[in-house]
Amino acid sequence: MAIKLYGKAMSTCTSRVLTCFHEKSLDFELVPVDLFAGEHKQPPFLAKNPFGQIPALEDGDLTLFESRAITSYVAEKFKGTGYDLIRHENLKEAALVKVWTEVESHQYNPAIAPIVYQFLVAPLHGKSPDQSIIDASVEKLGKVLDIYEARLTATRYLAGDFYSLADLHHLPYTYYLMKTPAASVVDERPHVKAWWEDISSRPAFKKVAEGMKLGGK
Amino acid sequence: MAIKLYGKAMSTCTSRVLTCFHEKSLDFELVPVDLFAGEHKQPPFLAKNPFGQIPALEDGDLTLFESRAITSYVAEKFKGTGYDLIRHENLKEAALVKVWTEVESHQYNPAIAPIVYQFLVAPLHGKSPDQSIIDASVEKLGKVLDIYEARLTATRYLAGDFYSLADLHHLPYTYYLMKTPAASVVDERPHVKAWWEDISSRPAFKKVAEGMKLGGK
Ligand SMILES: N[C@@H](CCC(=O)N[C@@H](CS)C(=O)NCC(=O)O)C(=O)O
Ligand SMILES: N[C@@H](CCC(=O)N[C@@H](CS)C(=O)NCC(=O)O)C(=O)O
Repeated sequence: MAIKLYGKAMSTCTSRVLTCFHEKSLDFELVPVDLFAGEHKQPPFLAKNPFGQIPALEDGDLTLFESRAITSYVAEKFKGTGYDLIRHENLKEAALVKVWTEVESHQYNPAIAPIVYQFLVAPLHGKSPDQSIIDASVEKLGKVLDIYEARLTATRYLAGDFYSLADLHHLPYTYYLMKTPAASVVDERPHVKAWWEDISSRPAFKKVAEGMKLGGK
Repeated sequence: MAIKLYGKAMSTCTSRVLTCFHEKSLDFELVPVDLFAGEHKQPPFLAKNPFGQIPALEDGDLTLFESRAITSYVAEKFKGTGYDLIRHENLKEAALVKVWTEVESHQYNPAIAPIVYQFLVAPLHGKSPDQSIIDASVEKLGKVLDIYEARLTATRYLAGDFYSLADLHHLPYTYYLMKTPAASVVDERPHVKAWWEDISSRPAFKKVAEGMKLGGK
């Protein structure tokens, strides 16, 4: 039975998992959740994820949520299939994948998410972007990317000279960021820009990006 | 050669890792970093963690940072020693440990950290706690804990009927929260309260808690 993912391709957290599926060449079914109708706050979906957020995964009788837990489970379960995203044969490399996966969670995501929200999501709710939130977040993201720039001068990808889950987790939000005026924060840093062009041109992500549209962007 | 951890016992992120060491009965050396003197923003420490935050770990020639990446590396490397924190022999249980570890990172930590900061850290910098931040964060944390309460009615610990890294990651911040007036958010929820009393009375954490003091509390 194919894995089922409940979510929406345009959602960053869903597309993070979809990209992982494609890197692993897995069969899966994407089951749409109607966010506008509030389907994610109704009991059938809450039974899959009590936090009422997409995505959720069903693999046989196992139900999981939190996008990064799902990618990590998939990368581990299918470590012999498709591209190895977690360097499972090398404990040290695997540890560095964990470090940079945590950096995405705790340093990158909190800085980038508000920028994408203000530019692309707020307008969908009839609100105009809050420039003070954008400015503070762009400054914060710039500081994080200064560290990435130095890192990517030494190694081709974040965890080392190999593409991994750590890079992959950055794709969805950065994809949307690049459609906003704040894209300059990437463009101004040559190694970050080259890394972005490299990881976003992988076939697995290109398939997913086709389905990523927020308010016509 | 023993593992070296650069940090401070009173820091939540350092004590998260120390608790993991004790669960694993590892030999280690805690190398103090003088935050007040800004040692974490100087080149020798930045070479270990370019983000200039504690803790950082050295295990032979491997240097790691981000507390949750370190615990996960230690739990994996020493899976045969001490308590098994990641259920490494059961892929499904291991996946649920990942889910609830991510919940701590993305749902619990963002709600609890500002409360502890306002009550216990701001006064150290001569600022009085910002009640509006406290109120908003307590409300957010309460919603997260409503979900924990339901979960802990069904299973004894977050990932299932076994203590794991997912529970462990909650210890340091909750320990400080319980010294503030916002402790009621835990005390009001019987299953959350019982879980807290259970996990905080494990010998591994009790050793670490002795060194956890913030501003005399
Ligand atoms: N940390 C979670 C975040 C999930 C999340 O924020 N999902 C969004 C879509 S990208 C959602 O469901 N939003 C609707 C809501 O929160 O009500 C993950 O990585 O899966
Ligand atoms: N996500 C990081 C956070 C590390 C962190 O915030 N460390 C604090 C102490 S708990 C620190 O070094 N603060 C000083 C600073 O940020 O300048 C981790 O889990 O290790």
